[in-house]
Amino acid sequence: MRQFIVLGHEAPTAPDFSLSDLAGGAGRLDVLCRCVNAGLFLSHGIREDSRVHLVLNDEYTVRFDGATAKRLYPNERAVASRVQGALESTADAIGHQPAEVSPGVELYRMDFASTLETVARDGTVVELHEDGEPLAEAEPAENPIFVLSDHHDFTDTEAAVLAETAARRLSVGPAVLHADQTMTVVHNWLDTAGYTDY
Amino acid sequence: MRQFIVLGHEAPTAPDFSLSDLAGGAGRLDVLCRCVNAGLFLSHGIREDSRVHLVLNDEYTVRFDGATAKRLYPNERAVASRVQGALESTADAIGHQPAEVSPGVELYRMDFASTLETVARDGTVVELHEDGEPLAEAEPAENPIFVLSDHHDFTDTEAAVLAETAARRLSVGPAVLHADQTMTVVHNWLDTAGYTDY
Repeated sequence: MRQFIVLGHEAPTAPDFSLSDLAGGAGRLDVLCRCVNAGLFLSHGIREDSRVHLVLNDEYTVRFDGATAKRLYPNERAVASRVQGALESTADAIGHQPAEVSPGVELYRMDFASTLETVARDGTVVELHEDGEPLAEAEPAENPIFVLSDHHDFTDTEAAVLAETAARRLSVGPAVLHADQTMTVVHNWLDTAGYTDY
Repeated sequence: MRQFIVLGHEAPTAPDFSLSDLAGGAGRLDVLCRCVNAGLFLSHGIREDSRVHLVLNDEYTVRFDGATAKRLYPNERAVASRVQGALESTADAIGHQPAEVSPGVELYRMDFASTLETVARDGTVVELHEDGEPLAEAEPAENPIFVLSDHHDFTDTEAAVLAETAARRLSVGPAVLHADQTMTVVHNWLDTAGYTDY
């Protein structure tokens, strides 16, 4: 299992945004949608052993699960439509019980710290950082959980929570990439290292 | 210089498509838009030494140049809007003279074979193929030119043209990726191999 937690600092927490203005009025939801694409999609297929957790403004987390996703398409608008559908179901997410939104998509009333704590039980948290060990020299961990941020850096609080939980720190390369591009590189690293769980 | 030629087999050749239906009525233009993103964008920056050539239905080629692009954003809708703008200028593209559409974006009345022949003068054409030499074991070529296809395979004619021009055949890994994901992996390979032309 490969998991990715992506923090959306300006992401919407209500469904009243336009699917035609994802990069504007929807708080750069386009960035998060591309992360779902990078995390789950292959050419003509889906990574059945991958999950992407989008943390929306530290209030809700929408989980996309490759194993159970159906009729999910990689374009930004399609993914954003699923997030919008999730935000129409907030009343059904009570405590840590998720709202089932559509096949493979669940909404949790959980902030970053709660999501990280819960997800971290099932694997090894890896921080992606420009000062980390280069991917090419690193040995993949079992059931890795990667934590990334949208177009903003981690806040000091988020960085502290992450540093406390992360077992390792890796760097994807000299160029600073977008979160979704980083996820694509990480998947490729695991694929070529012989991890065939896709 | 790093260049990418991407073939859009169902891509529009007229501007009368909806920016809200890129994955449907616009012939999977979403795929090509993601390729422009992967080819040109870094986090908070642009790859100034990269170009992406989108071949639209073997009729027109829209060239995006990282060196001169301005006010270009990575979301699918924004890139599609530039393609739409280019297709409003087809009357200005005469012979091999392009129409200047917006900063860094030009429209050429050129099919795949003409585009490949022209671009190939400035570098080494590399075919990306699952049977190729693994990236990790290959030495990058100077001024590489990568040729990719959208969600469809190359046609027999395209494959023949490419095989005739390509100096090398490389494979990005065991998993079959989308074109834009492949471009991200290729950029990362060049970045980490010490090519600092980004």
